[in-house]
Amino acid sequence: MSEPVKQVIGIYPGSFDPVTNGHLDLIHRGAKIFDELVVAILRNPEKDPLFTVPERREMLQEMTKNLPNVRVDEFQGLMVDYARSQGAAAVLRGIRAISDYEYEFQMALMNRKLDSTLETIFMMPAEKYSYLSSRLVREVARLGGSVDGLVPEMVVQKLVLKVKGTK
Amino acid sequence: MSEPVKQVIGIYPGSFDPVTNGHLDLIHRGAKIFDELVVAILRNPEKDPLFTVPERREMLQEMTKNLPNVRVDEFQGLMVDYARSQGAAAVLRGIRAISDYEYEFQMALMNRKLDSTLETIFMMPAEKYSYLSSRLVREVARLGGSVDGLVPEMVVQKLVLKVKGTK
Amino acid sequence: MSEPVKQVIGIYPGSFDPVTNGHLDLIHRGAKIFDELVVAILRNPEKDPLFTVPERREMLQEMTKNLPNVRVDEFQGLMVDYARSQGAAAVLRGIRAISDYEYEFQMALMNRKLDSTLETIFMMPAEKYSYLSSRLVREVARLGGSVDGLVPEMVVQKLVLKVKGTK
Amino acid sequence: MSEPVKQVIGIYPGSFDPVTNGHLDLIHRGAKIFDELVVAILRNPEKDPLFTVPERREMLQEMTKNLPNVRVDEFQGLMVDYARSQGAAAVLRGIRAISDYEYEFQMALMNRKLDSTLETIFMMPAEKYSYLSSRLVREVARLGGSVDGLVPEMVVQKLVLKVKGTK
Amino acid sequence: MSEPVKQVIGIYPGSFDPVTNGHLDLIHRGAKIFDELVVAILRNPEKDPLFTVPERREMLQEMTKNLPNVRVDEFQGLMVDYARSQGAAAVLRGIRAISDYEYEFQMALMNRKLDSTLETIFMMPAEKYSYLSSRLVREVARLGGSVDGLVPEMVVQKLVLKVKGTK
Amino acid sequence: MSEPVKQVIGIYPGSFDPVTNGHLDLIHRGAKIFDELVVAILRNPEKDPLFTVPERREMLQEMTKNLPNVRVDEFQGLMVDYARSQGAAAVLRGIRAISDYEYEFQMALMNRKLDSTLETIFMMPAEKYSYLSSRLVREVARLGGSVDGLVPEMVVQKLVLKVKGTK
Repeated sequence: MSEPVKQVIGIYPGSFDPVTNGHLDLIHRGAKIFDELVVAILRNPEKDPLFTVPERREMLQEMTKNLPNVRVDEFQGLMVDYARSQGAAAVLRGIRAISDYEYEFQMALMNRKLDSTLETIFMMPAEKYSYLSSRLVREVARLGGSVDGLVPEMVVQKLVLKVKGTK
Repeated sequence: MSEPVKQVIGIYPGSFDPVTNGHLDLIHRGAKIFDELVVAILRNPEKDPLFTVPERREMLQEMTKNLPNVRVDEFQGLMVDYARSQGAAAVLRGIRAISDYEYEFQMALMNRKLDSTLETIFMMPAEKYSYLSSRLVREVARLGGSVDGLVPEMVVQKLVLKVKGTK
Repeated sequence: MSEPVKQVIGIYPGSFDPVTNGHLDLIHRGAKIFDELVVAILRNPEKDPLFTVPERREMLQEMTKNLPNVRVDEFQGLMVDYARSQGAAAVLRGIRAISDYEYEFQMALMNRKLDSTLETIFMMPAEKYSYLSSRLVREVARLGGSVDGLVPEMVVQKLVLKVKGTK
Repeated sequence: MSEPVKQVIGIYPGSFDPVTNGHLDLIHRGAKIFDELVVAILRNPEKDPLFTVPERREMLQEMTKNLPNVRVDEFQGLMVDYARSQGAAAVLRGIRAISDYEYEFQMALMNRKLDSTLETIFMMPAEKYSYLSSRLVREVARLGGSVDGLVPEMVVQKLVLKVKGTK
Repeated sequence: MSEPVKQVIGIYPGSFDPVTNGHLDLIHRGAKIFDELVVAILRNPEKDPLFTVPERREMLQEMTKNLPNVRVDEFQGLMVDYARSQGAAAVLRGIRAISDYEYEFQMALMNRKLDSTLETIFMMPAEKYSYLSSRLVREVARLGGSVDGLVPEMVVQKLVLKVKGTK
Repeated sequence: MSEPVKQVIGIYPGSFDPVTNGHLDLIHRGAKIFDELVVAILRNPEKDPLFTVPERREMLQEMTKNLPNVRVDEFQGLMVDYARSQGAAAVLRGIRAISDYEYEFQMALMNRKLDSTLETIFMMPAEKYSYLSSRLVREVARLGGSVDGLVPEMVVQKLVLKVKGTK
């Protein structure tokens, strides 16, 4: 009789408004470590997003359809409560040479306080994405700059249209 | 005939909305260094606080009633002007491995420029409070998470009630 | 026959609302490195400035009138597009021991992505200006503190008047 | 027919001279994420260690005997070559609010360059161990300070004896 | 009957090889906060110093003779043991925008672990000394550079002679 | 009659033992900003180098032969004295998201103190070189790892031979 197989589930939470190539790079890396990786979109009622949650969900699903152990979901409320409901062992966060460490470590320790069984795991995206953030991508798009290479191809077109629509 | 005794007064300014266990830890440490420590609540007319200044003042007074050399006060305007009015030799600030150093050092040097006789003193709270901030505590409370261990016990109940009331 | 002389143009972009002694210090340093230094005021339609762009432009022109290779200009939209229109080889940014490195490096790398021929050059202002920022200067002025030594003399008077007017 | 089960192996390399409570904390956290975690002692012929590699190996084995998916090993040469020989998907590194980020990120990126299939995963030890390092523990022991609470109990006694012997 | 007067003693430990203007600046600041400030020279038998401990002690005594509440001493072994023997409430450390935070915070937390009653207090020297260290001063002197303004005047001459003697 | 043309000379000092692709990247960037860029090899009699100064000089000259405004030189003693002897306006230093800022800023400010007319200019190498250092390259080579892509091609072969010779 053998030991039961351990199923390690990871959560990759974020706003993904829009998803960048840095996010996508991290999803691929996380999929190699976890048995199942849940990409979890935060429904934040207070913020005024560029893309709706269903739009973001659809794009993420399309991008990850070739990764069989990646699932896209959405949540609201405390992230640790959501992670527990999914049976997750760890939260995945991107860390870069250019990171807001204060915020990242503060959140990791607060989450540990709120649920001591939930680990935070940091992985580094490719260096070429070290300067990317959704906020900066939105700003470049709004000022009419090219976002090629910053976001997945399927997002480029949609982003240009969105930004035109919000002007 | 002996030298007159030096009375060293320190100011610990902040919003304390709400006071956290990290603040309280620092007040205890500061009380060991200064002859008198003034916990000074900033009256900031622009911000929309969770607790009123009188509520915060009452809680701080209750929490520090066993520290004979700690006094609670409030102020508005330039902190250095207030410190001078109190005859303070130094401002006390918490510094943590997870700190916004840029902001802390910028304020310390600007305050020195505004009043070169006023020193800034940094002390470290216990490591277990290194991730605490009033802002994060408010957010956890609003999302329904437990704030036990994050704020003094007398604040826990009040905070839960406040947050319910603001929803 | 001699090689054609290389003309190296640098851009020093910013809001300059108001210009501080740290900005002025950096302009003097940049003027020693570049053949021409363009001080470029960002016209940001979303922000509510203290000084209008023409007011800032006039002050900067007055302050730099003795620097023959410094020119004051204004721009909107993507900075890299503006830099290209000026034939600039580099963007000048101030970097200080107290800097928001994350923001600075993120912008430098994003700008390189948007235009790989445009370099970012970091220079350090005098240490005595290491804590200065326009935002902090505005705040001190609003609270009635002295801004002598923080901004050029010609700005001191105007700033006091402005702040009175906005109360 | 079901998908073949993925076996994710992690390497936790280090000198462990001596193992600290921070190391042990991280081993427990890593064991929850990986199917197998290999604690790999670096044989560094140039350094003059306090404990021999066999002594360190024995202590680590004793400490982890209740963790069925943790294995202790030793290696020399390039860590990425060793990791490949073990079929590892990732290297585990501790990251703390008080870390030498420069070194950690430099090594992580160099290792990625040397083997692009090997990921580096950062996890945070408990805050109460955030200041621990083997070097500092050795120094405290040498100066006659108490190392209780800094290293596992079985190391305390051995460390005191070692340090006496080297005086 | 009045409360007994609290006597707060601070320790400012270091190698002071040589004392720099940054050290002296910090001694003046610390003397305003503590009732007594003990400048404590570490006797480190392993290091090969430029100035002997008696030479450093004499220089420090000369420089601080006008500060009645400053005393110069020397120690070896664990700093916390020495601090306890002096009845000190706190250790004073200089912190600068350009600091080795990792080392400073690691030492502060380790010292707290070794003696939880001993606080560490960080104060900032004048910005103009933010780049000074004894090591850098020795290097400049060895390469024949001027150390005027880097060390107190009485050290300048002695340093030049020392460095000549060691060539 | 026209203003005399300004000739701006920059110094890029270092050990270059060996030169990495990051160094070479920075030389190309600096050559676009300065009228003349002097790559200056530090002759450090105390260190035991891998390549001799003449070997390093020859390699740098070969690599930069297509950059007409780059000159290779060597120096000893204070860098500011050497820079003055060359009529340099600025020192060029590489700065990366992964940098030892403390050291870089300390040196920049010390150099300014030693010669207030000499500026320090920081530029960023390509992100893909952000983890490179000569020390790390030497270590990888000594452990038998591949240095392809880390150093210019002409250095790869020489480095492998050198390292074999020193074993």
